[in-house]
Parts: sequence; structure tokens; C-alpha cells
Amino acid sequence: MSGIILGKNQYGKAENRVVRIYRDTPRHEIHDVNVSVCLRGDFSAAHLAGDQSEVLPTDTQKQTAYAYAKEKGLLSIEDYGLALARHFVHDVEPVLGARIEIEEYAWERAIVDGAEHDHTWMRKGQEVRTAAITVSADEDDAGEWVIGGLKDLVILKSTGSEFAGFLADPYTVLEPTHDRVMATSLVAQWRYHRTGSDWDIAWEATYVGVKAQLVKQFAVVHSLALQQTLYEMGKAVLETYPEIAEIRLSAPNKHHFVYDLSPFGLENHNEVFNADDRPYGLIQTTVTRDGAPAPGPAWDLQQGWLG
Amino acid sequence: MSGIILGKNQYGKAENRVVRIYRDTPRHEIHDVNVSVCLRGDFSAAHLAGDQSEVLPTDTQKQTAYAYAKEKGLLSIEDYGLALARHFVHDVEPVLGARIEIEEYAWERAIVDGAEHDHTWMRKGQEVRTAAITVSADEDDAGEWVIGGLKDLVILKSTGSEFAGFLADPYTVLEPTHDRVMATSLVAQWRYHRTGSDWDIAWEATYVGVKAQLVKQFAVVHSLALQQTLYEMGKAVLETYPEIAEIRLSAPNKHHFVYDLSPFGLENHNEVFNADDRPYGLIQTTVTRDGAPAPGPAWDLQQGWLG
Amino acid sequence: MSGIILGKNQYGKAENRVVRIYRDTPRHEIHDVNVSVCLRGDFSAAHLAGDQSEVLPTDTQKQTAYAYAKEKGLLSIEDYGLALARHFVHDVEPVLGARIEIEEYAWERAIVDGAEHDHTWMRKGQEVRTAAITVSADEDDAGEWVIGGLKDLVILKSTGSEFAGFLADPYTVLEPTHDRVMATSLVAQWRYHRTGSDWDIAWEATYVGVKAQLVKQFAVVHSLALQQTLYEMGKAVLETYPEIAEIRLSAPNKHHFVYDLSPFGLENHNEVFNADDRPYGLIQTTVTRDGAPAPGPAWDLQQGWLG
Amino acid sequence: MSGIILGKNQYGKAENRVVRIYRDTPRHEIHDVNVSVCLRGDFSAAHLAGDQSEVLPTDTQKQTAYAYAKEKGLLSIEDYGLALARHFVHDVEPVLGARIEIEEYAWERAIVDGAEHDHTWMRKGQEVRTAAITVSADEDDAGEWVIGGLKDLVILKSTGSEFAGFLADPYTVLEPTHDRVMATSLVAQWRYHRTGSDWDIAWEATYVGVKAQLVKQFAVVHSLALQQTLYEMGKAVLETYPEIAEIRLSAPNKHHFVYDLSPFGLENHNEVFNADDRPYGLIQTTVTRDGAPAPGPAWDLQQGWLG
Repeated sequence: MSGIILGKNQYGKAENRVVRIYRDTPRHEIHDVNVSVCLRGDFSAAHLAGDQSEVLPTDTQKQTAYAYAKEKGLLSIEDYGLALARHFVHDVEPVLGARIEIEEYAWERAIVDGAEHDHTWMRKGQEVRTAAITVSADEDDAGEWVIGGLKDLVILKSTGSEFAGFLADPYTVLEPTHDRVMATSLVAQWRYHRTGSDWDIAWEATYVGVKAQLVKQFAVVHSLALQQTLYEMGKAVLETYPEIAEIRLSAPNKHHFVYDLSPFGLENHNEVFNADDRPYGLIQTTVTRDGAPAPGPAWDLQQGWLG
Repeated sequence: MSGIILGKNQYGKAENRVVRIYRDTPRHEIHDVNVSVCLRGDFSAAHLAGDQSEVLPTDTQKQTAYAYAKEKGLLSIEDYGLALARHFVHDVEPVLGARIEIEEYAWERAIVDGAEHDHTWMRKGQEVRTAAITVSADEDDAGEWVIGGLKDLVILKSTGSEFAGFLADPYTVLEPTHDRVMATSLVAQWRYHRTGSDWDIAWEATYVGVKAQLVKQFAVVHSLALQQTLYEMGKAVLETYPEIAEIRLSAPNKHHFVYDLSPFGLENHNEVFNADDRPYGLIQTTVTRDGAPAPGPAWDLQQGWLG
Repeated sequence: MSGIILGKNQYGKAENRVVRIYRDTPRHEIHDVNVSVCLRGDFSAAHLAGDQSEVLPTDTQKQTAYAYAKEKGLLSIEDYGLALARHFVHDVEPVLGARIEIEEYAWERAIVDGAEHDHTWMRKGQEVRTAAITVSADEDDAGEWVIGGLKDLVILKSTGSEFAGFLADPYTVLEPTHDRVMATSLVAQWRYHRTGSDWDIAWEATYVGVKAQLVKQFAVVHSLALQQTLYEMGKAVLETYPEIAEIRLSAPNKHHFVYDLSPFGLENHNEVFNADDRPYGLIQTTVTRDGAPAPGPAWDLQQGWLG
Repeated sequence: MSGIILGKNQYGKAENRVVRIYRDTPRHEIHDVNVSVCLRGDFSAAHLAGDQSEVLPTDTQKQTAYAYAKEKGLLSIEDYGLALARHFVHDVEPVLGARIEIEEYAWERAIVDGAEHDHTWMRKGQEVRTAAITVSADEDDAGEWVIGGLKDLVILKSTGSEFAGFLADPYTVLEPTHDRVMATSLVAQWRYHRTGSDWDIAWEATYVGVKAQLVKQFAVVHSLALQQTLYEMGKAVLETYPEIAEIRLSAPNKHHFVYDLSPFGLENHNEVFNADDRPYGLIQTTVTRDGAPAPGPAWDLQQGWLG
């Protein structure tokens, strides 16, 4: 039997629910995030001997996440994530790499008698914005990587989508269709690159613009396949934003089946649907910029699983 | 030992996910609901002998829910629910009572180049609208009842809320506070009453108005207690809408704890919070109109549980 | 417009996750519960004026739940719930009624080299045990009520179930079947009554016995209808346990549809099924003892909703 | 601006809920799985032009999953997954690679009057067994890979766990402890390798044995760090099963905080805990065999995300 060795590993504090209120004026601002920290480095002693002397507790990581919301502020999640990741890598001796994953929940101001209220909000509820920041001081792979994203963007079009001309084999019973409902709960992640040494990217405006492009292409592309729609969505984002090197899209095809009303003498011209739960198609596509810098560890070891 | 008898019972098809598209013009409309049916009557033979001859299958109830989305249309969920409930009670011999519970998921049109798109939507995501319609032909309790409602309305105020002067006992360690975050995920249900034999209620406008009143009072009332806020919310709804007899509010107190940053030499003037999951306070309050007609079976046997 | 008044209300701390370890010997014991407290009484001042002087904070209720796990112990959830409910009603002046709802998560000992381990457990994972205890000092309705129960008991039989001879109307397309899979995720709640002034009921043994009866009847009754099966399950429990006055069963019919394999030249004799998510039938049935004492407030205002 | 190109992509039908009953004798057997299919190959035409002529519909993949439960049988999920993956790669021309991910839900026979019942089961409810099978005909990377696993194994020890001697920085406030509760909801995935051209692995016995080793080491290792426990768990598996090349463990540290009862004059010697929800530590560790064959695409593009 060959020897047994420690492989890739990481650890951290997941899902810190940090809410930051800016209240310097009567018109407050709110930032509501769920932040997860992963640290990497040589933690062999902890694994092999239970020796914690090089292990910064996950509790400390939590304290830092809350403290930084005050010390560094919490405006753009990308900046906040960069500050946290740099701190762990540069200020804590044994830490060689950090990955910060953030979900941001949007709020909109309550409308009272037609006007926005100063300090009352409703959860906006649509999509969740995400970011994944990696900072590494590992000599082979030193650098910083920023991934922006969104998830749970539920979007549907009630026409302008076909599915026909597909490959058939002996297990194929599906009928082609030239008019169907297409719906998904979109996950998108896009990797930024930088030209200089700083991240001079307009995080907020870019987020708004990327989302608008994704929605627009979903709406206006006459879809022959969900793959085609996703590719066009990704392409439009890359064409609009030269600072984005790559975008990954994951789209469950949330089936809306035309309900058979013929036994009841009723015609159903794509008017009544059953929105089914499972199973669902799942299409995952990457659109990338030819010659873009390699991703390095940007996508490595995403929280939730060892990739 | 005394005899064993059949008690209250009901049955039906739950969570039919009906999506109705109106597409008579290029500008489509969408209505997306989750509808549950419960039927009541004398179903002793099914229970005692397995005799199904008086039992309309739950599959038939499902077919009817989809068929009615076409035959009767699906615009206001209250009208659709009344049509379904009346059908089961009046057209199916053994059925003496029907309760239809509906959740409606709101969509908003995708914005493309600044304009609303004709046939693409994003799930709005904020609150879920609800309705519960009961129709009974039982001689003791014949009639119709309509309850409107909403759930999952997540709302927060970052100031204007106190909690002090409370009762203390030997297990009380809580400190009073004169400025706290107050947040909840509101559930509200309001019971309509009618003066004539018809339901001449503007379901859509009333829904919008009730929600606006709930939000407004949450925002503007300086809160000494969540109970007080809920009471003012309910009172404002009843004052504005004479056709509402009663409103029930259920509000989890989603705690936002001020995070202790003092070990790090940082002051935290209600700026950084931990949004905690569990446990949470839960306040449930009914506000009613003195002399309003009794609810009859309106609240009986809500789906999800034998009330 | 008639006057607006405060209706039924209650408040409390929900979902306290209390874990109690008994470790007086090397062989530990574990009790893992989720406990929710609701208090009732005259809380008009809190609602109408925000006056908290009669309001015991929900934080105090939480402290008490944890403290009682030590002071009174946490063995049978019924006894623990009675102790908590009595305390709030008898020791806290303004409280006239208390309802304690408890979920208990079962653990089983880890097996190491064939033997049970002293202090390591795996979550058992099958059903969740429940209890709902009501104590009232309200003069109209003073007393104590105990409801035992379970939920999430997922049970399936692969034959011995029919569905035929049902009522057909114009929306009926379902075919009768004389052999189907029947599956459910059972919720059951049974109300105890007592003859003397004390609760001399063997809570643990009765729970085990009721569950065994429910499972046995589900297995051995040749089912012509889920209603019939539920009735037989309830009847068997009441026949076995004279201390149970009433049992309520709620059973989603988790449909397992025979998958159509005929396009592929395959026969499917009830061998391959699609386990569908939604919609599902939902059958709710009460079996009661003729002449049993009335339930009083035992089922009132269940947590989760104003009943 | 550089050119925009299609990157890595895959598609398939996710979460097919296949239930297979063996009923050739009165004593039935049940296999209950959730199976997801991903196909890879050159699907450029679908992305760039919406041309589906090389795209096998996800509906066909679903049909195949159900048909194979009958044609090939569904006993060990590894064998069933291999059959499906080989079929798509070898029988469907444009498909170069397939990944099949399976979750299996265990059932145990109902006990009726002390004996196992022939055709009634209760969902076992403890852990979910998983498998991920990859078959590739891509010339650079042709072969077969099998990963076994489990998730949702909730396990706890009430003593025998310390956390002390850790690195402290200015944000560290945590106190060391020499006796704590350690609990997790374990995810494990282990990669098999084969020596010959066939998979002559005892899938069922190995699964049972791996789980037993994981549980045993969790129980018996006196834990100085969760990292150490995980490493020992992985090491024991590799030492016992030479056919396993690598194991990956992901363990949320489900915190059980000792509840402070001192304000009430009560001592709490690790007897009463608050089981907290979020945040939680998350430790991810790989243990591998020195010189084991490289994983190839075994871990690539896990369903749920582009890894």
C-alpha cells in the first residue's frame, strides 16, 4: 500500500450575516450580506497532529468580518471582500491564500404617501448579487482575482422560443415545438481582469449594466435553443465590458408544460401551463475572451464543495 | 371504552402550479399561482368502508383548476377562487363545502433599453399574495367567505423602534433599548364582508391599498412595541377599508443584534448588526371591527393544518 | 363605521434550539429539541399604548427554556413542556395562558466495532416527535391539555392499495387502479385526557406504541382509499390507548406515477415510478372517542398560524 | 477587443426521481434515487447558431434514465450510473463525455408485530448516499471514473473534543476549551480506482464499510481539531480500502454553544447548549494516496456548478 498524504484543504467561517447601516444623516443606507471566509496555507500540523498554533480560529474570522464592516466600511461587496482577503493573507503569517464569498440581499425604500422613506425598507427579493474574491501570496500563483455574479434571477418569456430539429434516438419521444415558454432561475458569474495594479472598476455600475444585458438578450434573442440564448447573453456582456474576461452561466430549464385541456373540449393555445418542479434541464455555458489572462485560482475550491 | 367515531375531515389536491398567459395581443399578461383545493361533506363511506362512490378524485380537482384558468379566466385570484369553490359545492352532489387557498407570485416586465418588454418578465420576488375562499352549502352555515392576504413581506426599519419598561422576573437579563432595528417577515390575512349578495369589491385595488397601509404604518409609527405597531397597521387597514371586517397579523421579530466591537477598540452606534436566524420573537395579533359579522367557517381547517 | 377593537392575540419566543446532555456517567444521554413558547393574557396596553409593563420579554422566555432544561431537566418533552407552561401561567402575574410547542430530534448511538458508543450519536433522521402543551388559568377555561404527535414520517407501500369506483364528473380523466404505490409523509397529533388531577401517562412508551400502531395499520390494511387507511390507523390508536381522546392525521398523497415505458417496447408492471413533487393529494382526518371530554383550547392558535 | 469564444459547457436533465420496485416475489425490494445527467462534447452549433441537430434532448435523457431502471436494473447506483454513462458516450454519436450524479434515499422495512413487512417501508432518513460517474471518449482523457459518497450524515460527540493553542491576533476573543461538543453534517466523496479493465468492486459492502470507518474514527479519535479528526477519518478509509485513491471531506462545524446560566444561579457543566444555525466553521480536507492515479475529469464540472 502506498503512503497516505494530506491533499488540498481549506477552512473558514461560513455565512456570517452582516448588516451594515449608514446613519450619518437622517436618510439611512443599508447593506445586507452573507459573507463566507476560506483560508489556505500549510495547515499540515493541524491535520496530522492537531496542533493549532498556526490556525487562526474561524471565530476570529467572524469577528474580523463584522469589525471590517465598520473599520473599512461595507459599500461595494467587491471592495469589502478585497479588504478582508488582503488582511488575512498579508497580516496573518501562516495564511497564503484567502477566498471571500459574499451574497448581497437588496432592499428598496418603503414608499410612504408617494415618497421614499428615510429608514424603512422592503427586501427587494429579486436576484441575489454575489462576489468571490481570491487573494494569494503563494509564490507560484500570487495575485488577486475578483468574480462578480448573481443568482436566483427568475426570468420567463411567454413566446419567442423554439425547440426543434434535435437529435432523435430510440428513447426520444419529445415533440418539437416552435412556440414555448422559456423560463429559468439564472446563475451568472463573471471574472474581472485588470490592466494595472489597481482595481479601478466601477463595481456598482458594472453590476447594473451586466444584469441589464443579461435580461435584454434573454428578451430579444429569438431562441432556437437555451444554449444559444445563454451564449448570446454572455457575448453581449463581454462585448460591453472589456474588463470582464469570462462569464459562466448556469440555467435550469424550468419547464412550463402546456396543459392538455382537450378532454374537456377546451383549446389551449399556449395559455395554460403546469409549472413543473423536477426534473429540469440544466444548461451550463462559459463564454470567454480569446487571449484573456488565465483564471489562476479564481474558480478554485468554491465554498460548498472542493471543486 | 366508549365508541370511536369519525371527526372533522377534508381532502383535496394541494399546490397545483397553474400559470396563465393572456396572449390575445402582442403585449402578453401573466398570472402565476399555486392553488390548493379542499372539499368537505359527508365522506363517511370512504373512511369507514373505503367506498369511493361519493369521492371526486383529487386528480379531477386538479383538472378543474387548470380548465377553469381557461374557461373562467385567471385575473383576480379571489374571483378565480370563488368560481372554483362554487363549482365544487354547487355542481358536485356530495360536496357541501370547499376551501380554495391560493398563492400568487408577482412578475414585473423586463426592461429592455428603457422600455417594458411585451413578453418577458422577471419574478418580482417581494411578497407573495394569498387568498382563501370558502363556500358552504351546509344548512347551518351556508354562505361565502373571502380572505385576502400576503406573506413573506420582509420589512425593516433602522431606527424609530424602542423596547423598554417591560416586566422583569428572575430570568430577565435583557437590557432595555431606545433605538433598535425592527424587522419582520410579515404574514397578513384580512377577511372581507359584503353587504349585498354579490362581492362587488375591487380586489386588485384593495390589495395594493392594504399593502401600502401596512407598509406606511410600519414606517411612520414610532414603535414602543411590535404589538403596538401591528395594532396600528391593522387599525389603519380597517379604517380605510370598511369592506374588511377583520385582519390577522403574524410577525416574527427577526432579531438584528448590535455586534460588540468594543474588544477591537471600535464604537458601534447601531451601525453593524448580526442578523440572527433562531430563535425569534413571534407576535400574532388580530384587529377586528366591533359588531362585524362572525367569521363562520372562514378560518376553519386551513390547508397545512387542522386548525 | 363601527369601532375597531383588539381581537385574539398571543406572543412568545419561537424555535429555541435547546440541546441537553446528561453526563453524570461516562455513558451520556442526549435530548435535542426545538421549543416555542406562546403567552396569552390581557396585553391590551402593549397593543394600544406600547406599554410593556405587563409584557415578559420573549428573551426572558428563551432564558427560561434553557434554564429549565437544567433546573427541571429535559427527559420527556411532555413533562418539560408542562413545567414551562405552568411556570409562565402560575409564576408570571399577567400571563393567563401558555402554549408550548416542541419538536424533538432523535439520535441513535454510533456503533463502533459492533458496540454502542458512550458519547457519539448519529441523527436518526426518520420522524420528528412533537408535543403541544396548553396551560390556562383563564376562569372560563382553566386546565391543562397535552397533545403528542409526530411529523415527517415518510412511509410507503408498494402494493396493497387500490383506487377505484370513485365519482366521475366531466373533468374526470383518471383511470381506476387496483394496485398502486401509496406513500405519504405523515403528520399525526393525538390529544391525551386524564382522569385524575395528575398526568400519570407513560409518555415514552405511549409514543413508541402509537407510532407502531400507525405503521402497522398502514402496512396491513388493504387500502381502498387513503381515507380508509387513515381512519383505521386512528381507530387502532384509540382502541389501544384509552388515555387518548382524539387523533388528527394529515397525509399528503405523495404520488408515485407508473412511468410509461411502452414507447421503448418495455413492460412496466408497477416496477418503475416517477416520484412526483407537486401537486399532491392531501387527506386530513380526525378520529375521536364518542363522549370524550371537549378539547377546550388544546388546538387553539397553533404556532405558525392563528387557527 | 479580442475575440469572444465558447468555453467549457455541458447540459443534461437534472433530478430525475426514479423509484424502482423489485416485486418478483412477495417480498419486494425498493431503490429510490435522484439521478442527474450531464453530457459533454462539441455543441458549438447549438450555442452559436441554435442548431440542435447534434443535441440529444434532455427529455430523451430522462426517458433513458427511467427505461434503464427496467432494462439494466437499479441495484447498485454505481452500476446503474456506469450503464447510463456508457450508453450516452458509446451509443450517441456526438456525445464525448457523460457525468451521472445520483443520490440514493434509503428505506427500512416497517416492523409489524416484531417482523419485517414484505412491502411497506419507512424512509430511513439518516444520510443520503451519492455517486458520481464519469465516462469519457475524449481522446486526451478517455476512461471511466467512479466516485462514491454520502452527505447529510449528522453526527455529534458530547465530549472528547478540544480546541486550544490556536493562533491569536488582535481580532481574537475566543476562549480555548478542553471539552466541547463537536457536531457536523458530513459530506464525503471517495474516488475509486481500478487495476484491470473492469470495476470489480463490491459497491454495497464498500459503502457500508466506509461509512462505518468514518463514524468510528469520529467517535474514537480524541479531537484536538476538526481538521485532525477529518484527516484520521480519511486515513482510516484509505488504509482499509486499497481500491480508494482519494477521499474528500467537507464538514460544517455545527456549533453547540454552552448556554450561560450563571445569571440564574445555575451551573452548566457542558449540559445545556444552544445549537446555533449560522455562521458555522467549514473545514474541507482531502486525504489522498501517494502515487495514486491522477483524477482526470473525475471531479470536473460537478452538477450545481462549473467547478
